[in-house]
Amino acid sequence: MTTPPRPQVGQSILSLSTPLPLIDEVRLAANIARVQAYLDSHGLAFRPHIKTHKIPAIAKAQEAAGARGINCQKITEAEVFADAGFEDILITFNILGPEKRDRLKALNDRIASLKVVADSMVTVDGLSARFAGAKPLAVLVECDTGAGRCGVQDPAAAVALAQAIASADGLTFAGLLTYPKAHDEATVEAFFASAIASLKALGIPCPIVSHGGTPSLFSAHHVSSATEHRAGTYVYNDRAMARSGHCTLDDCAMQVLATVVARPTPGRAVLDAGSKALTSDLLGFSDYGLIVDYPDAVITGLSEEHGVVDLSRVTGPRPEIGDKVRIVPNHTCVVSNLFDVMTFHRDGVVTRVEDVAARGLVW
Amino acid sequence: MTTPPRPQVGQSILSLSTPLPLIDEVRLAANIARVQAYLDSHGLAFRPHIKTHKIPAIAKAQEAAGARGINCQKITEAEVFADAGFEDILITFNILGPEKRDRLKALNDRIASLKVVADSMVTVDGLSARFAGAKPLAVLVECDTGAGRCGVQDPAAAVALAQAIASADGLTFAGLLTYPKAHDEATVEAFFASAIASLKALGIPCPIVSHGGTPSLFSAHHVSSATEHRAGTYVYNDRAMARSGHCTLDDCAMQVLATVVARPTPGRAVLDAGSKALTSDLLGFSDYGLIVDYPDAVITGLSEEHGVVDLSRVTGPRPEIGDKVRIVPNHTCVVSNLFDVMTFHRDGVVTRVEDVAARGLVW
Repeated sequence: MTTPPRPQVGQSILSLSTPLPLIDEVRLAANIARVQAYLDSHGLAFRPHIKTHKIPAIAKAQEAAGARGINCQKITEAEVFADAGFEDILITFNILGPEKRDRLKALNDRIASLKVVADSMVTVDGLSARFAGAKPLAVLVECDTGAGRCGVQDPAAAVALAQAIASADGLTFAGLLTYPKAHDEATVEAFFASAIASLKALGIPCPIVSHGGTPSLFSAHHVSSATEHRAGTYVYNDRAMARSGHCTLDDCAMQVLATVVARPTPGRAVLDAGSKALTSDLLGFSDYGLIVDYPDAVITGLSEEHGVVDLSRVTGPRPEIGDKVRIVPNHTCVVSNLFDVMTFHRDGVVTRVEDVAARGLVW
Repeated sequence: MTTPPRPQVGQSILSLSTPLPLIDEVRLAANIARVQAYLDSHGLAFRPHIKTHKIPAIAKAQEAAGARGINCQKITEAEVFADAGFEDILITFNILGPEKRDRLKALNDRIASLKVVADSMVTVDGLSARFAGAKPLAVLVECDTGAGRCGVQDPAAAVALAQAIASADGLTFAGLLTYPKAHDEATVEAFFASAIASLKALGIPCPIVSHGGTPSLFSAHHVSSATEHRAGTYVYNDRAMARSGHCTLDDCAMQVLATVVARPTPGRAVLDAGSKALTSDLLGFSDYGLIVDYPDAVITGLSEEHGVVDLSRVTGPRPEIGDKVRIVPNHTCVVSNLFDVMTFHRDGVVTRVEDVAARGLVW
């Protein structure tokens, strides 16, 4: 059997075959330190979301910097990280169905602190039936404060669900949580304040108030009731985070290395990075990533293994066949999810190759 | 260590945890048979593109139906399929760089027939330098007949590159190839006819004329010079292929099973299938897949593990929390690429679970 190609420690990144996502160790460490220092300065606990990297070694670096616990989106992610020794895991998802509840119970029995969220009585009733008589499961109420995804719609509904959790067999009410609309801390603040006041009046303790997201991370201190912040993307950063004002392009630790494989016309280059390397995530952009070496080049279209680049606005030298270029992807979290291994470098020399341990699992 | 969840043969698909892509064995077999019968009836050889499934067992079924050789897009894909016993492999990519050329040479030395494409002298010169003195590598000239991706721009350029290949050390000229713009067989026909006439006048044999793509597969016979057709997506089919007229929605062998995890408002459902299950590929649609159980529901947005569904146009019963729904993805090939295993069923009972063997490799 052929051995899959794998970059070697000590190789120059310019000698690596492409397409390949690369993580700059210096930027990675700076991103971890900068966010932790900000949240420390405001007395907010930090719970990094591992969906961005899915690599236990990165989460250990986040923990070493001061993070308290981790955030997962899937049970299988949580299992991989529990296997790696993490004992405080929040899964921000409504867990439904007997197989998932069984695995959740097994996980709860073997780590110190497992928490999930719920936004409906269907989720709560299912969890309660499975955890009754067992080690209790901590459940937070997910609140929709404007992002329009999951979550109860108003503070009264949050309080009613909190009461139901607090009185349910097998469950403990652990607090409130939101994944907010970016740059709208006032709405989050008002939602949480109202719910917390009602819970207090009812004598229901609310130990955790969990706020989240990278785009408005550096505004997290405007939500005064929050006890913790969750964020994932900040660790690598990407083009969308730079546009949101969270970081600059120089803070983007991930770049996808690609090769110009064709120059069919003077105005067109074709890269070996397509939707199976960059993904089709636009996140509001009209093109598929920023070529840092040629910022006036536009990745206008992707097929699965090709990226078509419009060079017509590039003044000066244009890339030639065989040239390698570096791309800041629109969305780093989905790029991580495409590759079995992630390659790290310092000053262009490979430092380590990590398995993306929690990717590819069916749920 | 926790064992990853894996569906079991004999399970009902309705009992499976989600999100999960499923392949209907009956539709799969029918897709393979229908396309093979059509191409057989026109005397066209068929070379299936394995990028869609990346599973050797599926390629063996395609071969058993009559396919001659396979098409890969990456060397690592070709290596996986060579390990599985495939001896006739065409890699439709400009191969550049010393590491890739070394692996290509190792592959050429161990299978009966390896072929690649080139659209520039840079690619040809690199291959020639590596293969000089070794078992010759077969190279086809890639022609851009209107798709606007890779390929020489006109028949004269195709002929010039063919001459260069034919006279290059270590290489043999194997023919012409295009990935066409859909539904424009006349342009392909004219391009090929002109190049073939010139090659003939020069005394350069052109054994293979390779046409491709699923969208216009059933028009392949309009390119009279073609000796073979390549297609990948047809094997599973998807919403984009149904729109193109290649198939109906009932021919889509892949459906993604998802669960309604939240109903935050009367008009909104949230699924556990996001961009890490469906991908963000729109392919011209404005939504992210078709929920076959609720065709008037619209998947308006995806985050990584959530799909937000607008139910406002659904008359009659709306899906409830815990309900499972089946989604025809916009683009099946990129969904395959997200999962380590693929689950097959017949009449709703799991028949087998195959490793997606050629996914996740760095290049």
